Amino acid sequence: MAETKTVSSETIFTGRAVKLRVDTVQTPSGRRTTREVVEHADCVAIVALDANQNVILERQFREAIGKELLEIPAGGIDPGEDPVAAVKREMQEETGFLPQRVKRIGGFYSTPGYTTEYLYLYLATDLVPSPLEAEDTESIRLVPTPLSEIPNMIASGAICDAKSIAGLLAYIYLKKEHV
Amino acid sequence: MAETKTVSSETIFTGRAVKLRVDTVQTPSGRRTTREVVEHADCVAIVALDANQNVILERQFREAIGKELLEIPAGGIDPGEDPVAAVKREMQEETGFLPQRVKRIGGFYSTPGYTTEYLYLYLATDLVPSPLEAEDTESIRLVPTPLSEIPNMIASGAICDAKSIAGLLAYIYLKKEHV
Repeated sequence: MAETKTVSSETIFTGRAVKLRVDTVQTPSGRRTTREVVEHADCVAIVALDANQNVILERQFREAIGKELLEIPAGGIDPGEDPVAAVKREMQEETGFLPQRVKRIGGFYSTPGYTTEYLYLYLATDLVPSPLEAEDTESIRLVPTPLSEIPNMIASGAICDAKSIAGLLAYIYLKKEHV
Repeated sequence: MAETKTVSSETIFTGRAVKLRVDTVQTPSGRRTTREVVEHADCVAIVALDANQNVILERQFREAIGKELLEIPAGGIDPGEDPVAAVKREMQEETGFLPQRVKRIGGFYSTPGYTTEYLYLYLATDLVPSPLEAEDTESIRLVPTPLSEIPNMIASGAICDAKSIAGLLAYIYLKKEHV
């Protein structure tokens, strides 16, 4: 099968969180065009459930969209870090809880049209208090939310980012009975 | 409540699809740091159903991740374009079908940690053949897929991007009875 081929690649910017490159590609018909690619570390996204079947959601200001969102915990995997270790670290940093049980329940590319980021989806349970200090998490507020309310909050738009919707609905409707 | 404030903003790159800026922000505790923000047009994402209850999925190569994915149709809203017009145009360009019925069923930010993009989610039905030529769609192959198979394809990872998972599960489990 004819495929799109990468002809060349130019790095435009290397930042703290993202790297931007522009690839020149040749399409199956022979036409040349460019693709702008945002490189970002792979991440973990976490459905965290406490003993009372509350989902630990986080409310925080998002600079990119200029407003606060209510999301599931998530964060980048450090170079060489195991995803499960990243789940435990992010949980401690962002929620103050260390999960005693961490189980992979799925995963997805966040925006494959122009970013490289893949999100590993985990279920985190048996949460014990164990805070860990980190940069950039000072303005996160925790919002424990009954699992039974999640579908209505997604339907109403109260939860409105792709990873939270995909992760929570996948857990509730596809994985709950298996974990 | 103390909030993160934007102190200054510098545009790094303006491309065909993305614009990159770096904001300097001051956190509630007074610390200054930077946020890298990828600006991208808002988009439409489409759950398209034919008369036989097949979902129209698209298989295409994604340069950013170096592989083919199976996704729901989606695309950028042109400046000044109505989202419903964007749905009809994207459907014609990418699938060759013009939906006679287009209904908003939700929406979400794709990656609010570092991009501005919001995806308006639509259900498109009553599909009639009406192809429209466009750039960049030559290598899309259509994969009509029974709606009943979608949950298993998400659970197995055959469908593995956030917008497709969020859009399809929201339609199937939260919206189907209402549309």
